Amino acid sequence: MTESDLGAEALALDKQVFHSWSAQAHLNPIAIARGLGSRLWDHAGREYLDFSSQMVNVNIGHSHPKVVAAIAEQAAELATIAPPTANLVRGRAVAEILRHAPEGFTKVFLTNGGADAVENAIRMARLHTGRDKVLSTYRSYHGNTGAAVVATGDWRRIPNEYARGHVHFFGPFPYRSEFWSDSPEQETERALHHLERVILSEGPDSIAAILLETVPGTAGVLVPPPGYLSGVRELATRHGIMLILDEVMAGFGRTGHWLALDGVDGGTVVPDLVTFAKGVNSGYVPVGGVMISEPITKTFDDTVFPGGLTYSGHPLAAASILAALQAMESEGIVVNANRIGTDVLGPGLRALAAKHPIIGEVRGMGVFWALDLVTDPQARTPVPAATVGAIKAACADRGLLVFAAENRIHVVPPCIVTDDEVAQALAIYDEVFGEVGAG
Amino acid sequence: MTESDLGAEALALDKQVFHSWSAQAHLNPIAIARGLGSRLWDHAGREYLDFSSQMVNVNIGHSHPKVVAAIAEQAAELATIAPPTANLVRGRAVAEILRHAPEGFTKVFLTNGGADAVENAIRMARLHTGRDKVLSTYRSYHGNTGAAVVATGDWRRIPNEYARGHVHFFGPFPYRSEFWSDSPEQETERALHHLERVILSEGPDSIAAILLETVPGTAGVLVPPPGYLSGVRELATRHGIMLILDEVMAGFGRTGHWLALDGVDGGTVVPDLVTFAKGVNSGYVPVGGVMISEPITKTFDDTVFPGGLTYSGHPLAAASILAALQAMESEGIVVNANRIGTDVLGPGLRALAAKHPIIGEVRGMGVFWALDLVTDPQARTPVPAATVGAIKAACADRGLLVFAAENRIHVVPPCIVTDDEVAQALAIYDEVFGEVGAG
Ligand SMILES: Cc1ncc(COP(=O)(O)O)c(C=O)c1O
Ligand SMILES: Cc1ncc(COP(=O)(O)O)c(C=O)c1O
Repeated sequence: MTESDLGAEALALDKQVFHSWSAQAHLNPIAIARGLGSRLWDHAGREYLDFSSQMVNVNIGHSHPKVVAAIAEQAAELATIAPPTANLVRGRAVAEILRHAPEGFTKVFLTNGGADAVENAIRMARLHTGRDKVLSTYRSYHGNTGAAVVATGDWRRIPNEYARGHVHFFGPFPYRSEFWSDSPEQETERALHHLERVILSEGPDSIAAILLETVPGTAGVLVPPPGYLSGVRELATRHGIMLILDEVMAGFGRTGHWLALDGVDGGTVVPDLVTFAKGVNSGYVPVGGVMISEPITKTFDDTVFPGGLTYSGHPLAAASILAALQAMESEGIVVNANRIGTDVLGPGLRALAAKHPIIGEVRGMGVFWALDLVTDPQARTPVPAATVGAIKAACADRGLLVFAAENRIHVVPPCIVTDDEVAQALAIYDEVFGEVGAG
Repeated sequence: MTESDLGAEALALDKQVFHSWSAQAHLNPIAIARGLGSRLWDHAGREYLDFSSQMVNVNIGHSHPKVVAAIAEQAAELATIAPPTANLVRGRAVAEILRHAPEGFTKVFLTNGGADAVENAIRMARLHTGRDKVLSTYRSYHGNTGAAVVATGDWRRIPNEYARGHVHFFGPFPYRSEFWSDSPEQETERALHHLERVILSEGPDSIAAILLETVPGTAGVLVPPPGYLSGVRELATRHGIMLILDEVMAGFGRTGHWLALDGVDGGTVVPDLVTFAKGVNSGYVPVGGVMISEPITKTFDDTVFPGGLTYSGHPLAAASILAALQAMESEGIVVNANRIGTDVLGPGLRALAAKHPIIGEVRGMGVFWALDLVTDPQARTPVPAATVGAIKAACADRGLLVFAAENRIHVVPPCIVTDDEVAQALAIYDEVFGEVGAG
C-alpha cells in the first residue's frame, strides 16, 4: 500500500469511530500519520504546524525522543500492574510531581485523565469535610463523567451517592464582566463579593469545596485578575471549605510556569487539592491525578478511601510522566514557554490586534492565549460560529492547526515552540484575519 | 544500586502514592519489578505465579512480545492525537473490536477505562430513549465516577444533569438466592419476576436502561442461570428499555469466549450497548470503550453527542488493542481459556471442593472462577475477612498471587495459563485450604 492508500484507509475506517462532542454524520477529519516537535504530517506528507497542541495537552511537542524511549523501555519491562502493589517508576513519577506541588502537599493519587482526577478530588473534599456541595463557575469545564459510581450496586456506591450538591457561580472576566465592573481591580472585588454572597446563601457549612480552573481554559483562557485567587483562598479558609484548583489544562508548563498557580498572585495561593492531566506527560499515555495536601491525606490514613480504578498508578503512564517532567526541566521547556509568551507570542498577538479590529481582546500568558473575536469592538459582539469555522479552515489550508472555541481562537502551541514557528504562525493569522476580517 | 535497593526504593516512594479503595496507613504492598506470561518477579528475583491477572485484566499475560513491540512502534510514530482527527491505528483497532461485537453493532466509542465506558453508555441510552432512570443490580461494580460533568459549568453540563435516576434491584444468584428458590430454573423465573415488578413499579416509560454485568465479576463471578439474560432482553425490548451489558471484566477471553455474552444462553442475547476495557488490551495502556448498535449511533448522526474526553481514541492505546486482539486470535488464547476452564481448572477446583468443606461453592467458566468460602456448608455462612486474608497471605508465601474479595477467592489466571501452571496453583490451594480450613 502507498502512503496515500493508508490515508484513505484511515478516513474509511473512521466511519466506525464514534467521536467526542460531535454529530457523527458531520465530521470532516484530517488523518495525521506522524509528528515531531511542533509539527505533524498526514499520510501524503503534508506538513502542519500545530498551534493547538491537539487538546491543549502536547506541551512537550510530538514524539519527544526521551519520552518515546521511556515508554518503549517500560513496556518491555512491565507495562501494567495492579494499584495495590508498590511500583518503582510509579513512586519516582509521584515524587517528581510532588517536587512541583505547593508547600505541604505530600501524596498523589493517579487516575486515567482529567475527568476522573476531578471526580476523586471532589470525593476527597466531601469526605474530608463531611459536607456535600461543590461550587464551580459557569465558565468552566471539568470532564464528562457523572454516573458510574451511582450505577454501581455494591458498597462503593453508598459513600458516593452525591446525586445533588453542584452549585454554579460567576467568576471574574473583565472583558465580559457579569458585574458591571470597569477595571480589573473592580472585577476582582465584585467577583469576590458575588462568591461570598453565594457561599452565605448556600450555607457555608454545606459546602465541601470550591473547584476552580486556576486559569479557565476551554472557557477562553480567563487569566484571573490580580487578587481574585487569593481572595477565594481567604473565603474558603474562613468557611472551612476546601479549595480545589483544576490544573488539567493550565498545569505543567502551559502558562510558562510549572503550575499555573505559581504564576498568579505571585505564587502565594496554596490550595488544598490540585488536579492535573494533559501537560504532565503531554498525553503520550492516558493519565491524570490529584495532588493532595497533608491534612486531607491524614483523613484517609485509617479510613478507607472509597474511590479507585483499575489503571491507577499505571507503570507505563508513570514512566512517561517521569521522562516528560525530567526533559521539561533539563531542556528548559517551561522557561521557553515563559519567554515565548512574554517576548514573542504575547507582543505578536497584540500587534495583530492593533491591526485587525476583529480581535476584540488578546488574553493569556506563556503558550496559553485566546483571541476574542468580535464583529463590533465597541459592543464586543462575538463573531458567529461560521466566522470562526472559516478562520480555522483558512489556517488549515495554509498548514496551521488552530484550536477554535465559540467566538475564539486559542493560540496554544507546544511549550517547545520556537521564535521562528511563532513568526510563521503570526504571518498566517495576519493573512487570514486580513481576508476574513475584511469579508 | 543493587536490585534489592531498587525494591527498597519502590517501597519507600510508595508512601507518597495514594492508593485506590484503601486506608493509606494500612498498606503492605509487594513491589513487582517485571513480568512474563503468568509470572511476575520482585526486585530480589522472587517469582510469583499470577492467578489474579492483577485486576482480572491481564488476559494475554505479562509482557506479551507482540503487544510490547506494537506499543514501542506506535510511541515512536505518533503516541497521541486529538479525538476529532482520523487515525489509522485507531480505525483498525475499532474494526477489530467490531469483529467480535454482536450482530448490528456498527461503531465504537473509545474511553480511558471501564468507569468512563459505563458513563458514556448510560449517556447514550438516556439520550437515545429520552428517559432518565438506570436499573442495575446490588451485586455489581461499574466504576468510581459520578460528579465531574455536573461540576462542569459550561453547556456540556446541561444535557448531563442526571443527579437522579439510579435504581437497584437483585439479580439471580442460586447459591445465595434473594428469592427463596431451590433450583437454577426457579431462580431465573423468580429473578425475572422481581425485575419485572421493579420495572412496573418504577414506571417503564421512565427507564432508559438496564445495566448488567454479563457475568457479575467483583460480586463473585455470578454466571447467570440459563434463561435469565434472554428474559431480561425480552423485558427490555417489551418496554423500550436499552440493555447495556457491562463486559469490562467478563469480556475479551475471560469466560473462554470473545465476549461473555457469546457463552450465555447459547450466544443468543443481543444487547443495545456493550462496555469493555481490561481484557481488550490486557491493560498495557489505559483504555476502555462502548460498542454501539446501529439505532443508537443514528441518534447521534445529526445531533451532537454531549460526551467526550481528551484521550478518546488514543493511538498508543489503539495500537495495543490491535496487537492484543490479533495475538489472542492467532495464538488461540481464547480457545485456551475455554479448554482450561472446561478440562483443567473447573474439574480441579471441584475436586478441591469435594475435599475441603470450607469451599461452599465453585462457580465460573473459562479462567473466571470463584470459590465461595463458608464456615458451615449447610448454613452457607461466609468465612470472616480474616480467614480470606490468611489464605491470601499463605498463598503469597508460596509464590501464588490470588484475588480475594469478601469471603471469596477468585481464581482468575491469564487466558494463556498452561496446564502445568494450573496444576501448581491447585497444589498450593490444596495445601493452604488444608491448613487454614482445619485451623
Ligand atoms: C480544566 C479541565 N479539567 C478537566 C478536563 C477533563 O479532562 P479529560 O478530558 O482528560 O477527562 C479538562 C479537559 O479539557 C480540562 O480542561
Ligand atoms: C464490570 C466492571 N465495570 C466497570 C469497572 C470499572 O473499570 P475501571 O476500573 O477501569 O474504571 C470494573 C472494574 O473492575 C468492572 O469490573
